[in-house]
Amino acid sequence: MMVKIAIMGYGVVGSGVGEVLRVHIDSIARRAKEEIRIKYILDLRDFPDSPFADRFVKDFDIILNDPEVQIVAEVMGGLHPAFEYVKACLENGKSVVTSNKELVAAKGAELLAIAQKNNLNFLFEASVGGGIPIIRPISQCLAANDVIGIAGILNGTTNFILTKMIREQMTFEDALALAQKLGYAERNPAADIEGHDACRKICILASLAFGRHVYPGQVHTEGIENLTLADVDYAESWGGVIKLIGRVKMLESGKIQIICCPMFIDRESQLANVDDVFNGILVRGDATGDVVFYGKGAGKLPTASAVVADIIDCVKHIKARKYLFWEDGSPDYVEDYLEDVLPMYVRATAENASVALGTADALFGGVQQLSRKDAPRNELAFVTKEMKEKDIREKLEQLSRMGVKVETTVRVADL
Amino acid sequence: MMVKIAIMGYGVVGSGVGEVLRVHIDSIARRAKEEIRIKYILDLRDFPDSPFADRFVKDFDIILNDPEVQIVAEVMGGLHPAFEYVKACLENGKSVVTSNKELVAAKGAELLAIAQKNNLNFLFEASVGGGIPIIRPISQCLAANDVIGIAGILNGTTNFILTKMIREQMTFEDALALAQKLGYAERNPAADIEGHDACRKICILASLAFGRHVYPGQVHTEGIENLTLADVDYAESWGGVIKLIGRVKMLESGKIQIICCPMFIDRESQLANVDDVFNGILVRGDATGDVVFYGKGAGKLPTASAVVADIIDCVKHIKARKYLFWEDGSPDYVEDYLEDVLPMYVRATAENASVALGTADALFGGVQQLSRKDAPRNELAFVTKEMKEKDIREKLEQLSRMGVKVETTVRVADL
Repeated sequence: MMVKIAIMGYGVVGSGVGEVLRVHIDSIARRAKEEIRIKYILDLRDFPDSPFADRFVKDFDIILNDPEVQIVAEVMGGLHPAFEYVKACLENGKSVVTSNKELVAAKGAELLAIAQKNNLNFLFEASVGGGIPIIRPISQCLAANDVIGIAGILNGTTNFILTKMIREQMTFEDALALAQKLGYAERNPAADIEGHDACRKICILASLAFGRHVYPGQVHTEGIENLTLADVDYAESWGGVIKLIGRVKMLESGKIQIICCPMFIDRESQLANVDDVFNGILVRGDATGDVVFYGKGAGKLPTASAVVADIIDCVKHIKARKYLFWEDGSPDYVEDYLEDVLPMYVRATAENASVALGTADALFGGVQQLSRKDAPRNELAFVTKEMKEKDIREKLEQLSRMGVKVETTVRVADL
Repeated sequence: MMVKIAIMGYGVVGSGVGEVLRVHIDSIARRAKEEIRIKYILDLRDFPDSPFADRFVKDFDIILNDPEVQIVAEVMGGLHPAFEYVKACLENGKSVVTSNKELVAAKGAELLAIAQKNNLNFLFEASVGGGIPIIRPISQCLAANDVIGIAGILNGTTNFILTKMIREQMTFEDALALAQKLGYAERNPAADIEGHDACRKICILASLAFGRHVYPGQVHTEGIENLTLADVDYAESWGGVIKLIGRVKMLESGKIQIICCPMFIDRESQLANVDDVFNGILVRGDATGDVVFYGKGAGKLPTASAVVADIIDCVKHIKARKYLFWEDGSPDYVEDYLEDVLPMYVRATAENASVALGTADALFGGVQQLSRKDAPRNELAFVTKEMKEKDIREKLEQLSRMGVKVETTVRVADL
């Protein structure tokens, strides 16, 4: 038998999907127990030199209205028209696999409900962690656990930039320029460096692990664009590194605490050595303890191979839906991030730094002073005790009113 | 609806399976879409205080002949009678899940074939890596990859011992005694420290990744019992650590190169920081590159939760077999380990160590000398170039004939 599929979008990931399916045609047929054939590729551009040149179409309706197409791989990216296309496919009896984290983070609950109603699959292993298996392990392998929390380095671009700052003392600007030159960062890098990409991914993981949709707009998100080499040095003297972390934990109240921001990570943490463009995701289960998944979080072939693995899974389950599902969320499901309790790193300037440090020490009931080589005389840096972030912010306000200028704050992770 | 299961064996893992099923009864029912009820527990001992006291049976035939029992969890361990029981269950229409690596490594191909013939599932996520998801990720998530190789720290007991030797300069004997005291090592620790346990696990992973059964007897296996603090120090001065590694790679000939032995691991490797009782498994795929899985490789609840995840998967697929399968192996499928090409660490003694080092240098065409503090005057240590192990062994023979006593050799990994 033969299963016919369509690919929507022939960019980096889409052409990778074609390549993986073509190169591994025999082993994939063996594993899927069916031959998988690409019937259409949707793209507005022409690709006369592609091995699939005869399969390109520009009109989505050709795919939608062809009952032979059972599975559609959506790898266009962006929310529109990806959402409308995916929705239409699911309503027309086609299973969908996608690498589109923006789509899943914004519309996952809605699309999963449509898939369930129509007894179809909507799979998205490639939307988080590229080629690292993470969606399936959380939903299947850890099914006998209650997940307590998840924390991850979920964006390769920012991790590359931070690694260059940490290991080679490059400035943020130089590291970003290098990332762009190497093709790791877009010309417009906002989605990466401002944390939005990582935020979408932790939303997807949180939705999956706890069964209710979390929307990116509900998550306090900070990027890495304000970090300096001074902060990197202070993190080192504290005993760790700065990483951009997406983190969620289940609270006793039944709400979740979720955030996406740079964090100080202890050098001994399993996430501290996740460097360059690699991703690392730590899942804390009540039975398994900490399990960590590590690998390349992006790139043409890793991401494409995850999309193809989902296609294979769809083929195997062509008449049986996979039990991937979560309910819709609600505004009160996410706890205010200011209610979280943690230590905070603070870098500040003041006319008299040592007096300011003494004031901070008194205000916070003791702080851990940090030092670095060649610090300007007016600079001070410290880590507070663990306390409610709201209280930390209030005390920092007080410090400001006393003439201490707070330059940067970075949360300290308990990983 | 309700699915009735039996547990065979009520030791550490078996009682953990009962506990996980009991504590998570609601969330498991939600995920499995059915209630899961333990009908029988097979054990020769009595457990009057167990919450399942009324379910214990001593006669396997009660389970075998009860058509209500659809799934059996084998957590007795050992080859006999586990094999006979599991085989009988599969031949009588019951799916089986197991944590028994000895069983899967010795009889996997045979049992998978019986399961296939009877359209049943035989799942064994818990047999490798305890609570770390690894069987399913290799078989499903990396389905679009050709796996090139796998290397792992697969035994927590030996990793604990080596970590104590490396980090705290404990001798092997003291570290083993501590592991026994803490319950990490058995009274008779041979299966762990001689490498047999890790060997079984790499056999299972190799069988799964490459589709043909590899038997433990086909794998050259060395333990850690001959390693000394001298070797740990030399590894440090070389730039890494010694770990007990199970490793397999696919050769161009279609044969596999597989081994289980202590290895020098570069400090920068993702496996170098896998310490204490933790396991780490690196899977190299042609599309994903390196993916690493990390977590607790043993223990009551992690292992039990993996068994229960398999039970849930069986329940979901009660009428649809999972495509876990490999063919039987053959004697010529495994390449002679002496044909592998790698560098070798050598520690030796000689009347005149510096003369002996010069001889070694000439014999091997250049060696990297290693040093350590307080080395005896008659000791020498070096790392050879990369060459065929057979040739290395021949040259070491020659060295021996010249009065140089080779004390230890450790392979250098390319991880």
